[in-house]
Amino acid sequence: MSNAGDSQQDPILRVGSNKDLRITLIGTGTIGLSFAAFHLAHLLGPSQLTIYDTRPNVSQYVEENLPKFFAEEPSAAAISNIRIATSLKSAVEDAHIIQESGPENLAFKKELWANVEKHAPEQSLFWSSTSGIPASQQAQDMQDKSRLLVVHPYNPPHIMPLLELVPSPDTSEEVIKRTQEFWTGRGRVPIHIKKETTGFVANRLAFALLREAVHLVNEGVVSVEELDSIVESSMGPRWAVAGPFKSYHAGGGPAGLESFFKNIGGTVQDCWQDSGKPDVGDGWEKKIFKQAHDAYGTVDISERDKLMRRVLEVLKEEKSKGAQTSEE
Amino acid sequence: MSNAGDSQQDPILRVGSNKDLRITLIGTGTIGLSFAAFHLAHLLGPSQLTIYDTRPNVSQYVEENLPKFFAEEPSAAAISNIRIATSLKSAVEDAHIIQESGPENLAFKKELWANVEKHAPEQSLFWSSTSGIPASQQAQDMQDKSRLLVVHPYNPPHIMPLLELVPSPDTSEEVIKRTQEFWTGRGRVPIHIKKETTGFVANRLAFALLREAVHLVNEGVVSVEELDSIVESSMGPRWAVAGPFKSYHAGGGPAGLESFFKNIGGTVQDCWQDSGKPDVGDGWEKKIFKQAHDAYGTVDISERDKLMRRVLEVLKEEKSKGAQTSEE
Repeated sequence: MSNAGDSQQDPILRVGSNKDLRITLIGTGTIGLSFAAFHLAHLLGPSQLTIYDTRPNVSQYVEENLPKFFAEEPSAAAISNIRIATSLKSAVEDAHIIQESGPENLAFKKELWANVEKHAPEQSLFWSSTSGIPASQQAQDMQDKSRLLVVHPYNPPHIMPLLELVPSPDTSEEVIKRTQEFWTGRGRVPIHIKKETTGFVANRLAFALLREAVHLVNEGVVSVEELDSIVESSMGPRWAVAGPFKSYHAGGGPAGLESFFKNIGGTVQDCWQDSGKPDVGDGWEKKIFKQAHDAYGTVDISERDKLMRRVLEVLKEEKSKGAQTSEE
Repeated sequence: MSNAGDSQQDPILRVGSNKDLRITLIGTGTIGLSFAAFHLAHLLGPSQLTIYDTRPNVSQYVEENLPKFFAEEPSAAAISNIRIATSLKSAVEDAHIIQESGPENLAFKKELWANVEKHAPEQSLFWSSTSGIPASQQAQDMQDKSRLLVVHPYNPPHIMPLLELVPSPDTSEEVIKRTQEFWTGRGRVPIHIKKETTGFVANRLAFALLREAVHLVNEGVVSVEELDSIVESSMGPRWAVAGPFKSYHAGGGPAGLESFFKNIGGTVQDCWQDSGKPDVGDGWEKKIFKQAHDAYGTVDISERDKLMRRVLEVLKEEKSKGAQTSEE
């Protein structure tokens, strides 16, 4: 009972719904700033967002670059609310969550976490945004390796719901659970990846499709722009609504995925057999880079992001309607 | 000049905007009925939709099964508008477009087109919905092979915008162009596939991702349901807005795709190297079918389709807004 009481009083143990939470971001590249925009929009009550970066004039840099991550200009109060820390110690010594989006460099991350561990409160959570360096490697010089895990966003994290939570074999179950609660409490989709797989899951899936896309364009079957149109008008919207397994399971009727493979497993296998295996550096690059450049020039990301927000809003609206209906 | 005059008067030459068009559908399986729903919703003026199928009681079957393809119940007038043909000759002899969604069986299709050709008007278009049998094979017994091409939908065609147009080497440019105009004129996305590739393009891309998905679930990295959540909250909505090349081109900043591969080509290659190559029948099936069944039971397709419509509406709305803004 005293444990339950403690956990209710100690904000650090209940990051999911906490109203008095101190989050520290280390690194202010694109991912760091995008997370800053997300956290600013989701801080409840008198919470504190702290930023630490060794770049010169961090305050000015953040003031200039953070606003473009908001759909509308953030209120001055919101940005002026950010505390800029001038040392790693002062950045982390009070923090409940320490989220790192620094350079993709193992030596940097190993040293960082060993230092963070010296100064951070005992129960604070350590998250790395890395897209490729496993927590087990980053934690090599830590005393207590149970607190660190990868929290890999899908770019840009202030818009996209997915977070891949990739613990090392040493990360504790409790740390994973508290991290899940934090993101679920903020309407996001944290998925626990059970093994430290190269590239995690989302990128591996996307790159598998990209490889076949490169092959088909390289063979002259369609152009870069036609391939994008195909995806945008078929599996893109389909998979926004129901992922590949669910879609093919639905396609199989009452007998589901089994029936799907019974009906068209032969075609699936023929496609797998015939699929290309281009490698990076194989010589397709020049042609495909040129086609992308000719078709798109420089993409207006703000337009894309606006549209992304709308699509995600609709999905959220309709899914919550669906949930209400099924609860009635 | 008389040619231009003829083409303006002859509806068969301008199927894109035609108000007096006769379309004949052969086959009333799921795809055939879905196309029927689409055409009914897009027939302009005094056009005629004809259905031909050798199954018993076609009229009753269509009346019973077609309504479920509409978001709301179709008006009785719309369905009673359909002409049910009792012979192949009467089905095709007046048609501008003959669209086949019959069994996936080469012998059936070869014989069908040879017969259709005997009775159909000289300039009518021949479309096959096949997902796998190339037009060049289907046309083997035809006198004039230039009229036939594959028009492969993404299921369900009454909702999904994509049509893969896959001509044989004998299909004429004019037939391809008129087919494109028909679909573009009805707000759809017809893409000309330049080679008769196994599985065409959309399925090949989706199956490439599916293969990696099967591998990751089979390795215990994530579950079927988690994998679907990952796709639904990351690349699904992303690719609904901008296809893979455009997305990675945007991700590379001003230098585009080239810069993207410069930055993370190593990670891409590592993922490609490490990706699994499960085959159909390799033994992963039982576990994955069970997971899909346990997670989803029987999927409520009408809910999914409703959500799909909403997502596609939003994309259309926002894209047309974008187009207006850039024209201003």
